[in-house]
Amino acid sequence: MTVTCAAKLEVIALPGLPVVAPGDDLAALVAASLARAELSLRDGDVLVVASKLVSRAEGRFVDLGATDPTRRAHQLAVRTGHDPRHVELILRESTDVSRAIPGVLVTRHRLGFVVANAGIDFSNAAPPPAIAARGRGPWALLLPEHPDATASRLRASLAGEGHGGALGVVISDSFGRPFRFGSVGVAVGSAGLPPLFDQRGKRDLFGRALDHTVTALADQVAGAADLVAGQADEGRGVVLVRGLRFDADDAGAATIVRPADQDVYA
Amino acid sequence: MTVTCAAKLEVIALPGLPVVAPGDDLAALVAASLARAELSLRDGDVLVVASKLVSRAEGRFVDLGATDPTRRAHQLAVRTGHDPRHVELILRESTDVSRAIPGVLVTRHRLGFVVANAGIDFSNAAPPPAIAARGRGPWALLLPEHPDATASRLRASLAGEGHGGALGVVISDSFGRPFRFGSVGVAVGSAGLPPLFDQRGKRDLFGRALDHTVTALADQVAGAADLVAGQADEGRGVVLVRGLRFDADDAGAATIVRPADQDVYA
Repeated sequence: MTVTCAAKLEVIALPGLPVVAPGDDLAALVAASLARAELSLRDGDVLVVASKLVSRAEGRFVDLGATDPTRRAHQLAVRTGHDPRHVELILRESTDVSRAIPGVLVTRHRLGFVVANAGIDFSNAAPPPAIAARGRGPWALLLPEHPDATASRLRASLAGEGHGGALGVVISDSFGRPFRFGSVGVAVGSAGLPPLFDQRGKRDLFGRALDHTVTALADQVAGAADLVAGQADEGRGVVLVRGLRFDADDAGAATIVRPADQDVYA
Repeated sequence: MTVTCAAKLEVIALPGLPVVAPGDDLAALVAASLARAELSLRDGDVLVVASKLVSRAEGRFVDLGATDPTRRAHQLAVRTGHDPRHVELILRESTDVSRAIPGVLVTRHRLGFVVANAGIDFSNAAPPPAIAARGRGPWALLLPEHPDATASRLRASLAGEGHGGALGVVISDSFGRPFRFGSVGVAVGSAGLPPLFDQRGKRDLFGRALDHTVTALADQVAGAADLVAGQADEGRGVVLVRGLRFDADDAGAATIVRPADQDVYA
């Protein structure tokens, strides 16, 4: 695996993406936005798609008003101060509880990563009218069902339209961190680019083997995209990161996840 | 505090920086590199300087061969499998041990953050001959002594040369994460830009208050820079991130650190 970075990287928010609705063809929306911006994909381009767009396209809306909390959800709601229905959704999306203390519910998501509130979000979670009419709300939006597979399909669709070569797709979300304030972009799904950039075997300026040998390429790409994506009314849900060089890679973002048996904070 | 991101960000590695030696004037080296690249600083520019350059300029070399481990260092060396002299250096730089298990020693650094091996590095840690002659080695390089203060001084020097306005400086390092593989860039020091970008009060596309309200701006800028900086023989230790818009901010990167009394994994 080779990853070489150009001396210059561009991070470009794609213009004019609509609010995504269930069933929308994300690849077609991305291709249209690229065309509108007069951008043709190049070797080494990575498209970073906000997980929220994927979740909306997949119809991952859940009506909190119609959610029945289990006894366990009620217990954890008391301990954390969260809404029991919210806790119920979190538990349904999780395999394990990492920490539950006042104000904090951190779980291991079924996709493997450890994250607050199972990545369930209430902002930009308003469903289209046809779905909204079916429930009381408030509505929550779950993370995409199989983000690595979706990234792979998106990549194949875009490559199929002549955007071949080393093309990467990252499905990004914002996670908090246990020891630092503020959220950062992370890759919940990826395809085409190496999620982890392994520099083992490289040498430092003095010929010594490098210490930090594996960098989280897909996460850092998601973080760079987050800098231009914003979350507010601009609606910049797809970002093009241009200037990386990498060999196409089959691994998905699931390989970034430290498995439960290597969790030193379990 | 206002931070608005342009729709496009550029991340540019500065060319031709020399290997830094103790006493070097980093601001002058950065200014010379900018001139060489024919770049004039603009409002909203952030200069990301690898912590290793700052540590080298500050002469933070330590001779492992001359380090006497305490009894506690020996105990933790047995538990972790680390070199007792390395453990000794880690403990001297730390206020607390977060996890010590085979292969892993995570501490709370005296600067506040929780990090493996107190951020002590052996790559690019070779001292200049005059220092190397004074010891046996191997040599380690400690993190900068007061990175927020150094970022602030660097910013003042560069602003003094006519690069005024909203100019940011980030001193970056690569940290591993407890729940994810691979390292990412983080800000160990910063000046001029808001380390945390607070979006509270902003609304989502549907007018609902945003969920993820605080993003770790300085960390994400460090991560974006890491994408072009590399660690190997290119020597891209200073990166210009261009295209952000922010109001000058007095807070340093220390404000990103979640204090010990809010550590849910203590």
